[in-house]
Amino acid sequence: MEEKIDIHKVQHSQTIYFKNRPSIIGSFSIAGKKESQGNIGDKINQIFDDCHFGEKTHEKAEKKMFEIAIEGAIKDAKMKPSDIDMMLAGDLLNQIISSSFAARSFDMMFVGLYGACSTMALSLAMGSVMVDGGYAKNVVVAAGSHFATAERQYRTPLELGNQRSPLSQWTVTGCGSCVLGKAEKAPKVTAATFGKVIDYGVKDVNNMGAAMAPAAMHTLVAHFKDTKRKPTDYDAIFTGDLGKLGETILRDLMNDKGYPLDDRYSDCGRIVFNEKQNLYQGGSGCGCSAIVLNSYIMEKLRKGEYKRVLFCATGALLSPVSSYQGNTVPGIAHAVVIESV
Amino acid sequence: MEEKIDIHKVQHSQTIYFKNRPSIIGSFSIAGKKESQGNIGDKINQIFDDCHFGEKTHEKAEKKMFEIAIEGAIKDAKMKPSDIDMMLAGDLLNQIISSSFAARSFDMMFVGLYGACSTMALSLAMGSVMVDGGYAKNVVVAAGSHFATAERQYRTPLELGNQRSPLSQWTVTGCGSCVLGKAEKAPKVTAATFGKVIDYGVKDVNNMGAAMAPAAMHTLVAHFKDTKRKPTDYDAIFTGDLGKLGETILRDLMNDKGYPLDDRYSDCGRIVFNEKQNLYQGGSGCGCSAIVLNSYIMEKLRKGEYKRVLFCATGALLSPVSSYQGNTVPGIAHAVVIESV
Repeated sequence: MEEKIDIHKVQHSQTIYFKNRPSIIGSFSIAGKKESQGNIGDKINQIFDDCHFGEKTHEKAEKKMFEIAIEGAIKDAKMKPSDIDMMLAGDLLNQIISSSFAARSFDMMFVGLYGACSTMALSLAMGSVMVDGGYAKNVVVAAGSHFATAERQYRTPLELGNQRSPLSQWTVTGCGSCVLGKAEKAPKVTAATFGKVIDYGVKDVNNMGAAMAPAAMHTLVAHFKDTKRKPTDYDAIFTGDLGKLGETILRDLMNDKGYPLDDRYSDCGRIVFNEKQNLYQGGSGCGCSAIVLNSYIMEKLRKGEYKRVLFCATGALLSPVSSYQGNTVPGIAHAVVIESV
Repeated sequence: MEEKIDIHKVQHSQTIYFKNRPSIIGSFSIAGKKESQGNIGDKINQIFDDCHFGEKTHEKAEKKMFEIAIEGAIKDAKMKPSDIDMMLAGDLLNQIISSSFAARSFDMMFVGLYGACSTMALSLAMGSVMVDGGYAKNVVVAAGSHFATAERQYRTPLELGNQRSPLSQWTVTGCGSCVLGKAEKAPKVTAATFGKVIDYGVKDVNNMGAAMAPAAMHTLVAHFKDTKRKPTDYDAIFTGDLGKLGETILRDLMNDKGYPLDDRYSDCGRIVFNEKQNLYQGGSGCGCSAIVLNSYIMEKLRKGEYKRVLFCATGALLSPVSSYQGNTVPGIAHAVVIESV
């Protein structure tokens, strides 16, 4: 190395600002029966009672959810698929087959993303970059998950009927999608804070909330430092999907850092299901924050009940192989600021 | 839908132009013993003879390759890791654990990408967007693969010693990385053509070349139409990793479309190994086009022997689950134009 190493580590800004304020012109959420019985069930655009969704396999059902959510968002934007330049999407399945097989149904450029359950925020952030920078006119972004495909891939076959850990979360069966472009009367994505991979050494694969909370803290603190804002500058702050325990851990961590979170803050994993459903820590999966954003949060933004929201989706970066090989579970969180007109 | 459906389908441009011409300031390639014995072996920056690379598992070896390639590219750019804002990377492993666990070692924002073996071009394109749009000053991009981790995940355990299909390709053990930023004397990324998901109905998972060639054709034709250029406007055109058969299929397809490819064109999968190695159709994997770009191609660009190169990496969007469920193998190809000063 020819240059001297700077011992005073440079603290880069992790936040980018979108001066052209890409608009969320359309949005759509689709989910299963259990999600329809949760706290935000009545806000979801389309519910299907059959977890196979008329398909032969759960994986094909998951792909179909993506197709319907994307079509729904485009329709909500009063556009046609041919108005969209690019699709940016991701999911939890190996080789993101739900997203890429869904992309096959649309005649659009496709950028595959992997951010585990942070994908809704990651796709919104990268989609906003494409629109804000003038690289695309209209893009569609999407994220989703399915309980049955996730259980099979990450845990045990459903047929075994295994007992669940009290620290576990229930993967949301659902998908959310947004169309980003230029429109006057639509919520705007005004900034994005990209996360780093953060690892506090959690090894318990049933305790994703604890694994992801430090990543959420890092991204939120970076956001508040970069923007010189404080949590009370937002009408609402959402993380997702930390679950009940993860939300508690995050509150503690944020207190320690001098950014206490009041009741403006809640976690998509905690609010997606209700207490009576007895799903331990709450919801998880790419679909969790995706359906909460594209139903409950978007409705409040559109009505102007929220002027400014910080949406910070969280992901646990593990695979069964990484865990079998003794690795810890690092996390990542990406955040976007959405403002109503 | 309130608007009328336009029966004359809009043909969007798939090409974006980088007016600020992001520079490839540094690059690095690392690979295994077999790759060192191939056609471009003497151009690779670092070779390791032990496929475990001193690690306990092949997956950990793959992650280590990413770390070394990224560090190498940063050093080659005469920078420190703290000079880099963001890392954009992807690999073939489930949940891209090689990239995300490598990202844990660097204090940078991380964007996980999944484009199968098209990832080197996808990460270069998205990294160029970040730099060109002023969203990041310097970014590092990377893609890689490991023969043993890919065989275990996609095919059969190596211990079985299964016979290989004559149509098969050998996954490259290697990783390539580039640092993108602003520099006068360095090759520039001047445009990118993003691909669509293309499916010609190939179901043979041992014949990836046939599955991906149509996607390469679509992206190349889109590129030539968008830019109003022809293949002879380039000193060299590379696809990767179609292999020998895939290269032949692509030549046929391009002839049919009126864009015949002469000897300026070659495929990274065909050239990475040599005939004597008897690896049937040649190389494959994210690492294939990544190491060819970051050794042989970059050297010629830096020396000015190539003035303008079209680098079009190709990916097959399948998983073992998608194939077991009877799906075909869709492909995708992303292309970037790299020009020497």
